[in-house]
Amino acid sequence: MKLARWRKQTEWPLAAVAVVFLIAYSWEVIADLEGPHAVIAETVINVTWAVFVLDYLVQLVLAERRWRWFRTHLFDLAVVALPALRPLRLLRLVTLLAVLHRTTNRFFRGRIVIYAAGASLLLIYVAALAELDAERSEGTITNFAAAIWWACVTMSTVGYGDYVPVTIVGRLVAIGVMIGGIALIGVITATLASWIVERVAASDRDEQQETRSDLQDLADQVAALREEVRANFANKEDPEHPSR
Amino acid sequence: MKLARWRKQTEWPLAAVAVVFLIAYSWEVIADLEGPHAVIAETVINVTWAVFVLDYLVQLVLAERRWRWFRTHLFDLAVVALPALRPLRLLRLVTLLAVLHRTTNRFFRGRIVIYAAGASLLLIYVAALAELDAERSEGTITNFAAAIWWACVTMSTVGYGDYVPVTIVGRLVAIGVMIGGIALIGVITATLASWIVERVAASDRDEQQETRSDLQDLADQVAALREEVRANFANKEDPEHPSR
Amino acid sequence: MKLARWRKQTEWPLAAVAVVFLIAYSWEVIADLEGPHAVIAETVINVTWAVFVLDYLVQLVLAERRWRWFRTHLFDLAVVALPALRPLRLLRLVTLLAVLHRTTNRFFRGRIVIYAAGASLLLIYVAALAELDAERSEGTITNFAAAIWWACVTMSTVGYGDYVPVTIVGRLVAIGVMIGGIALIGVITATLASWIVERVAASDRDEQQETRSDLQDLADQVAALREEVRANFANKEDPEHPSR
Amino acid sequence: MKLARWRKQTEWPLAAVAVVFLIAYSWEVIADLEGPHAVIAETVINVTWAVFVLDYLVQLVLAERRWRWFRTHLFDLAVVALPALRPLRLLRLVTLLAVLHRTTNRFFRGRIVIYAAGASLLLIYVAALAELDAERSEGTITNFAAAIWWACVTMSTVGYGDYVPVTIVGRLVAIGVMIGGIALIGVITATLASWIVERVAASDRDEQQETRSDLQDLADQVAALREEVRANFANKEDPEHPSR
Repeated sequence: MKLARWRKQTEWPLAAVAVVFLIAYSWEVIADLEGPHAVIAETVINVTWAVFVLDYLVQLVLAERRWRWFRTHLFDLAVVALPALRPLRLLRLVTLLAVLHRTTNRFFRGRIVIYAAGASLLLIYVAALAELDAERSEGTITNFAAAIWWACVTMSTVGYGDYVPVTIVGRLVAIGVMIGGIALIGVITATLASWIVERVAASDRDEQQETRSDLQDLADQVAALREEVRANFANKEDPEHPSR
Repeated sequence: MKLARWRKQTEWPLAAVAVVFLIAYSWEVIADLEGPHAVIAETVINVTWAVFVLDYLVQLVLAERRWRWFRTHLFDLAVVALPALRPLRLLRLVTLLAVLHRTTNRFFRGRIVIYAAGASLLLIYVAALAELDAERSEGTITNFAAAIWWACVTMSTVGYGDYVPVTIVGRLVAIGVMIGGIALIGVITATLASWIVERVAASDRDEQQETRSDLQDLADQVAALREEVRANFANKEDPEHPSR
Repeated sequence: MKLARWRKQTEWPLAAVAVVFLIAYSWEVIADLEGPHAVIAETVINVTWAVFVLDYLVQLVLAERRWRWFRTHLFDLAVVALPALRPLRLLRLVTLLAVLHRTTNRFFRGRIVIYAAGASLLLIYVAALAELDAERSEGTITNFAAAIWWACVTMSTVGYGDYVPVTIVGRLVAIGVMIGGIALIGVITATLASWIVERVAASDRDEQQETRSDLQDLADQVAALREEVRANFANKEDPEHPSR
Repeated sequence: MKLARWRKQTEWPLAAVAVVFLIAYSWEVIADLEGPHAVIAETVINVTWAVFVLDYLVQLVLAERRWRWFRTHLFDLAVVALPALRPLRLLRLVTLLAVLHRTTNRFFRGRIVIYAAGASLLLIYVAALAELDAERSEGTITNFAAAIWWACVTMSTVGYGDYVPVTIVGRLVAIGVMIGGIALIGVITATLASWIVERVAASDRDEQQETRSDLQDLADQVAALREEVRANFANKEDPEHPSR
């Protein structure tokens, strides 16, 4: 069995597992579970983790050049091996959107905006979860509403400073949100720029269209000339051949 | 009566109603009305609300595919039904600016800038009103000057943190202002980028103009050739016909 | 005497007056002058103010359509009439840079960057002066170094919140700096975007160059054809004429 | 020996010296060295400094127009002469990346992103070192983790305000980080804009390709016409020559 086929066939099942993980993780973190509920949530999280580990190992076995695959997928290893990077397993959901690369240019900008909005909402939700998990005991971010608010304030690069992470993990999550925020501003600005440039360039395109039309006229004229030359030569040869 | 015609004919009257609502709402919030004045303001707001509800119902009745219209206008329903979303009724005023889409390309950028400036000022004003309304009793934003200052600081993504919303509604308003701020930065940057790209591309366009001019020369030359060929053939046939 | 000529001839003298004003104003604000020194500084400021008032009146008299000039130059009136807008008189210095609009496209981007850097430095300096003037007695910004630091933090939209204006004038100055900051980010991003777009488009331009070269080849070929046709007809007519 | 050759041959050795300086400086600042270790680190730093001074002097001697070189390299002098600007010696490492300017357009954007990421990480690391060095005794930034966190918060222009520099040197470093942050946002946005513009323009390019193909068809047609004309004249002259 080929690696590419495995990846293709496990794309949707693993996304489903990621969703299950998201629900269990959300429940555990938001409700700050204790006792039997915590055991249930932790069990579900461990099962989804086992699935991701299995997927990693199968991919490693299926890879043709195993050592090269290992070196180029250290990030995947880290996500599977380090509990602190658990939320990154949700990146599975983002890869589903990679289908965007295969769309036509017509609605390209519209899809980029939808993609950016979706990825931003997912990032805010996941970052708020991870931040709450990391900061609850030591920091000021002690409930989910505050964590969502903090994520929005950070992502927009406003940064009031009313809630600020103080733990190492919380700060790493914050840096991730900042990078996401810069990327979001970049995507929005770039999409707008592309739209404005195109609108303004429309008149230029009209002009180019005119050039093409000129070219067509010219081609028609040359074709007519050719026809005329041929017809004339034919005319002149016909009366000459019999005269010989 | 058609839905499109209804929308066209109610465009300006509803904008006027939105302005009346804006004035009454501003008066109520800024002056923190009590007693008879509050009753007057609240009555005016309720009357404008009734107009918006009426408009929503008439549109629903006039829509050809009612269920589809309902599903695609959930946002309009929310604005009409939820008191907390009252300020969004002023979006009516923004839709008036949609006329922009139909302008020529020539002054496209200038109008975008005017539109962005107008929308930003309206957003700052309305957000300050809504924020003051939401935060006055619980938060630190207790007068209109502070609310305007807070809106400017948030919209520019500076975010000093001297005034920070603490209520759920206040934070939702803040997220709206942040999104507006990111959009404003995007619009300004994109417009500038379009302008610079065009200025730099001007020399390229000159070159393209030259290409078109070359093409014209070529077309003239082919036309001259064709004329010449035709004239020569005519010349040669004239002396031959009589010789037959 | 024409208005345009007056403006052209007073351009440099008024810029010099603006510099004198800048020095006197800086001295007064930074040193927080008292006693005779304050009188000297204030006198110089008043003299420069008188020059600006005189310039305003002369322009009003020279304007052909006086009422229209008045209506379109309300901003100039406000800068001259309102003491709080004194720092805006330094905009004179910025207008000198308007010469940029007349430069060639070749170094357009380089000059934009220099212009943006110069305007940013001037804005930071002037805003810090105005902020210190406004906040010294009531706020936390009580020395020039802090005012410069505050202006940089605001302009970059970082907004730590360690120094925050609390007076109305101080906040208006801050909003001006925020707008300047957004504009600066926009200019830098747009210039970079223009540069990258051009670099990437270079290969496209090479292709266009190739198109032009193809077109030239075609034109040469048509010209050769025309010459050939003419030569052949001449050849054929020469031997025929004598045969008649 | 020519200056250009000297610069070319010392490029890599001086980068290595800069790395040695970086290690010694990091060790001294992060570990807040005292006693013999501090002496070792300081000695290494002084040796690398001596190398940079030597390089500066050799360049000054080798320069053909010495006074002009001196005036245009005041920045290099400042970096060598002022201890507070020590971290800027690491700019040596950035110049190595100047090789980027010579790459093909194909992967231009990819390399810009890698370059921006690399420069950002270096800037964050160096700024955190310099900030810790400047602020440790007077400010709140008293350990390296806090300094890195502060640099990230500043560079992203989030600016929570939990850590704020209070010394002159610390604030100058902060302004450098802010400028870097604005540049980073600009580079990311510009690269995205270029990519989107190109994707959307792809269909335009297809159209241009079509124009070129039309042109080729036309050229073929003209060539065929020419061939035909030539063949026909040859045909007609062959039967005439023998008839003479």
